Amino acid sequence: MPDSTDLAKPAAPSARTRVKRLPERGHYDRETIHAILDAGLVCHVGYVIEGQPYVTPTAYWREGDRVYWHGSSASRMLRQVKGGVPVCFTVSLLDGIVFARSGFHHSLNYRAVMALGTAEAVEGEAAKLAALEAFSERIAPGRWRELRPPTAQEVKATTILHMALDEASAKIRTGDPKDDEPDYALPIWAGVLPIRLVAGQPEADRRLAPGIPLPAHLGAFSIG
Amino acid sequence: MPDSTDLAKPAAPSARTRVKRLPERGHYDRETIHAILDAGLVCHVGYVIEGQPYVTPTAYWREGDRVYWHGSSASRMLRQVKGGVPVCFTVSLLDGIVFARSGFHHSLNYRAVMALGTAEAVEGEAAKLAALEAFSERIAPGRWRELRPPTAQEVKATTILHMALDEASAKIRTGDPKDDEPDYALPIWAGVLPIRLVAGQPEADRRLAPGIPLPAHLGAFSIG
Repeated sequence: MPDSTDLAKPAAPSARTRVKRLPERGHYDRETIHAILDAGLVCHVGYVIEGQPYVTPTAYWREGDRVYWHGSSASRMLRQVKGGVPVCFTVSLLDGIVFARSGFHHSLNYRAVMALGTAEAVEGEAAKLAALEAFSERIAPGRWRELRPPTAQEVKATTILHMALDEASAKIRTGDPKDDEPDYALPIWAGVLPIRLVAGQPEADRRLAPGIPLPAHLGAFSIG
Repeated sequence: MPDSTDLAKPAAPSARTRVKRLPERGHYDRETIHAILDAGLVCHVGYVIEGQPYVTPTAYWREGDRVYWHGSSASRMLRQVKGGVPVCFTVSLLDGIVFARSGFHHSLNYRAVMALGTAEAVEGEAAKLAALEAFSERIAPGRWRELRPPTAQEVKATTILHMALDEASAKIRTGDPKDDEPDYALPIWAGVLPIRLVAGQPEADRRLAPGIPLPAHLGAFSIG
């Protein structure tokens, strides 16, 4: 783990990423931030074009203290973001709906990470292939070497960006509702409805050639 | 349905929201956009402060051809966005991981909506109460009238924003992988791993007063 020595060192919470409201929900240590990032699959990337913010959902992965995302080299988001413009990288995982005794104290349980910075492109075919393999291995360990290998043209048509988690914070809410003290005596049900992402049974491609078994790496997949 | 007559009229896809790459994934009719929004619970709101984009996850709801979100009047996001600055409102629902025969054609199945515009605040206690009730009824029909009623102070401390879906698009991917034609003959498993959000068993508040049954409105909840 190249970043293991960094885990004790908090990511510097800047004035821009410090959780100001409900500060008890803010976390700045790398271990917490990495754990949330490793439980997710889709991030929301924010960027600005001519004063207009855009928020694009896309798959991502983490290596050390950096996040990666990728896509077609023709993508508007990737073309804009690889130019070194300011980016906001946000991951949120919904864990539950918090039902309180008053409307005001209803809430969500969640884990979220917000990171600010600028992204840069992974350059060179070898480095891009290594990054793509890391992403594939994260989702389905062992699958990469079973696939039809990437062509040079495919690698060229893929843009991969990465961004350091230098200015990042996590925000977490867990547990029961926090009601006003007198409201606890009211005859109103309160509690949490847990929500989670689950993977179902794999569905074979209708054009799957006969006699190909389901690979073990799909059974091991977990998310959330 | 106050907006039913609008369903046939596509939301105008502007140059900014038209899906340019893979245009077959783009949808602009209100019925499609509304259905995606009604299946979600958490949006990602993008806004800009001093050139820096921020992406904040928050709960939302839809009424007619508008989306609503809310929070503490002290929230940075809400204070910034209610000033009428450009906003990007994005909802994404992950439906599956698409395993192809080459790394290049791996993909995600998803439904997403992106809307651009400016938000405005719901003003006045009665209008704010009506909006909060609509949100509560969407999640747990019948619960609102069982709760301890909101105080004037609570309503004042809550900012509710809404934004028209005038400039919006949906992007959807479904179904099997789309592999290169020669790759279909390869002995590689391909297909889709479905992913979905599910609600678990409700967990009662540890301070729940004795003898309060689980209300029926919680059993009816569905998401995704």
